[in-house]
Amino acid sequence: MVGEFVVRFSYLLPIAEASIEDGALLVRDGRIAWVGRWKDFDGDQEVIDTRPSIGMPTLINTHTHTAMVFLRGLADDLPLFRWLQDYIWPAEGKLVKPELVRKAYKLAIAEMVSGGTGAINDMYFFQEVAAEVIEEIGFRGILAEGLIDFPTPSFSKPKEGIRRVEEQLKLNGRFKFVKFGVALHAPYSCSKELLKKGHALAKDHGVPLHMHVAETLDEVKQITEKYGKRPVEYLNSLGLFDEVHFIAAHSVHLKEHEIQIYEEKGVRVAHDPESNMKLASGVAPIPKMLQRNVTVGLATDGAASNNDLDMFSEMRSAALLHKVVGMDPTLMDARTVVEMATLRGSEVLGMEKYIGSLEVGKSADFIAVSLDRPHLQPIYDPYSHLVYAAKSSDVSWVFIAGKPLKSNGKLTFIEEGEILELGESLKREVMEALRE
Amino acid sequence: MVGEFVVRFSYLLPIAEASIEDGALLVRDGRIAWVGRWKDFDGDQEVIDTRPSIGMPTLINTHTHTAMVFLRGLADDLPLFRWLQDYIWPAEGKLVKPELVRKAYKLAIAEMVSGGTGAINDMYFFQEVAAEVIEEIGFRGILAEGLIDFPTPSFSKPKEGIRRVEEQLKLNGRFKFVKFGVALHAPYSCSKELLKKGHALAKDHGVPLHMHVAETLDEVKQITEKYGKRPVEYLNSLGLFDEVHFIAAHSVHLKEHEIQIYEEKGVRVAHDPESNMKLASGVAPIPKMLQRNVTVGLATDGAASNNDLDMFSEMRSAALLHKVVGMDPTLMDARTVVEMATLRGSEVLGMEKYIGSLEVGKSADFIAVSLDRPHLQPIYDPYSHLVYAAKSSDVSWVFIAGKPLKSNGKLTFIEEGEILELGESLKREVMEALRE
Repeated sequence: MVGEFVVRFSYLLPIAEASIEDGALLVRDGRIAWVGRWKDFDGDQEVIDTRPSIGMPTLINTHTHTAMVFLRGLADDLPLFRWLQDYIWPAEGKLVKPELVRKAYKLAIAEMVSGGTGAINDMYFFQEVAAEVIEEIGFRGILAEGLIDFPTPSFSKPKEGIRRVEEQLKLNGRFKFVKFGVALHAPYSCSKELLKKGHALAKDHGVPLHMHVAETLDEVKQITEKYGKRPVEYLNSLGLFDEVHFIAAHSVHLKEHEIQIYEEKGVRVAHDPESNMKLASGVAPIPKMLQRNVTVGLATDGAASNNDLDMFSEMRSAALLHKVVGMDPTLMDARTVVEMATLRGSEVLGMEKYIGSLEVGKSADFIAVSLDRPHLQPIYDPYSHLVYAAKSSDVSWVFIAGKPLKSNGKLTFIEEGEILELGESLKREVMEALRE
Repeated sequence: MVGEFVVRFSYLLPIAEASIEDGALLVRDGRIAWVGRWKDFDGDQEVIDTRPSIGMPTLINTHTHTAMVFLRGLADDLPLFRWLQDYIWPAEGKLVKPELVRKAYKLAIAEMVSGGTGAINDMYFFQEVAAEVIEEIGFRGILAEGLIDFPTPSFSKPKEGIRRVEEQLKLNGRFKFVKFGVALHAPYSCSKELLKKGHALAKDHGVPLHMHVAETLDEVKQITEKYGKRPVEYLNSLGLFDEVHFIAAHSVHLKEHEIQIYEEKGVRVAHDPESNMKLASGVAPIPKMLQRNVTVGLATDGAASNNDLDMFSEMRSAALLHKVVGMDPTLMDARTVVEMATLRGSEVLGMEKYIGSLEVGKSADFIAVSLDRPHLQPIYDPYSHLVYAAKSSDVSWVFIAGKPLKSNGKLTFIEEGEILELGESLKREVMEALRE
């Protein structure tokens, strides 16, 4: 499966164009060389027949903390502050070291690839380790350490954090699958000085600036009390959205005029429906953002608040949540939601020239979803099935840059036994740390 | 695997009692003969080792229209009335015949068993056909045709419907896995006379009375305008909840005093979070019902409005939806949600003496959920994983009355090829009918 091969699907969804029944893709040197109807294909290349199946671009997770899988389900159903204060922060403080990040990352990429995800926008610590794991597997990520005015596992002072980020940014260009960006943790955890410094770094290096914005009502209250402005107004007054590719995660509590600021400044949004539901943060006004043509992608957030990295589940939750909250069953139709998980996600990451849709010249990043499952029969509309019936476990093939990372249902870069070993090893470390 | 065998799990959740690490179940003649720690088991019976796994009772779907899988995804993202009027009713009117119901039922049971569901409460047409399919497979169902003042595929006048139901009720006792009940479609689609007749039938035969109640705001408006009472008040004024086992599906639009009526009358509720979300019906006040000790189970509704019959997905949606709507992350904790999908579901169906928990003497209806998947590692709390991370595809074993219907990942009662055949055959029939 090197060089050239053609992949055949029952339904091919290029996303940028109409879906094709009995469609096929020609892959040449890791790129898409041809897209069309199978019967119009004329060549003698090796054929991978994935039917009965839906073919589509890989899914793009626009906001996550990948390594946090080590805390998956450690504590749930708690008030946010108790959850962070009593469980998440102590465990992170004691445990997050390069070798743990390496193990957690490998386990998490196994989960994400298995479910059809092909690229992430990540905020966490020891990102140079994450970069090695991603590059070795041939997954894709924009990685940044969240600058913050508190001690963290990878830096104890903001200045050290900035030094680390500057070092990472120097590595850009050396990797095929990784780009280092800049992240600011949140309006309430960064001083004005730090915010401006992070913004300048992202601007000077021409990389995305990634930040948690307006996630909770507590944040809105704190920022309003301290600065007399709501979070988005406050960031805008500091010029944080100017001359930079800004990725705002969450953006739950926005008024209409704040959505307008997003529109005017080209702020891109990473929508995390399940994390916002589980932590009871609120419901982001996504339908209003879409009306204003704000670019919105989907995201899982970290597995500590989800508790998985499953983009199919996010697609479904996004489609269902906004319908019932808006009391309108026409909101967030299936086609729009699939676009958010693919092409619009690539726009959030600034990678739309390479991934997010199946077009000649783009990288061969695509998946096949198997339809020979009772919950996917009969099929009338592939978009409907992807959002309202398919599961991540239906993904049978995953290609990134033309390389199969999942092949006929099996991950190619990890043994099944290793998954359990990684999980058990992470659990042992957590249990020991919590006993101390 | 007949007679006696023991099944071993990493975590065994009997539900009625605390979970057991490295637990086991002894099955004898289709019943549970022993439950405990593996190391305390003393016997030489055949051992089925499902580890790494969670063992738990089968899931119970308390409200569905099973055969509607033939319309899965035919039309979505539409206003309710257009959806029903332009797609669902015409397709049903032309297509729903005994042979279609038989095919659809088999496909749907394959889906449900594959995802760990072991019993349903069903409202649809030609239920004597459904009974044959269920009995042959050894699945479980309470079946009823929804009495209604409109022509339906299986009866054209309410009187005929009542005659059909009376015939079906006479069959009770002949089946091992099926019980016929009585269903009334909804307050807005049944006359007072029909409501009273249905109630009398259920009461006289000692079977559950199943009904859609207060599903939409439109229904509340219609009933209030016509009778000067809200739906639950209206049904209560007619004595519909008295001296009968009443199963109220949906129950989205209830005021506090109506929840109190449910509590006082012992009305049991089938909660359909995903259907209510997708059709934008509203959010049922489940946390308030639970506070009042109303018995609430979970349900998928039909696959035309979901679009699957996946109880894992419903568990997750129920847990997440009520947290964000109530702005309280402690609502609908994982343990409560798993109980709703199992033991409380069995109480909704009136089958708690036989299924819903793993206790000596109950029927051997249980499942194993495999943990050797990246999205289920590491594991700290099995309840948390079941609700927030597991998928129906993680179910590796399903036993009903001690018989394996899913065995190490494979359905035992249907060939893989038959699933696709059933799906394609149903699709052909639908497409032909819609072209006419």
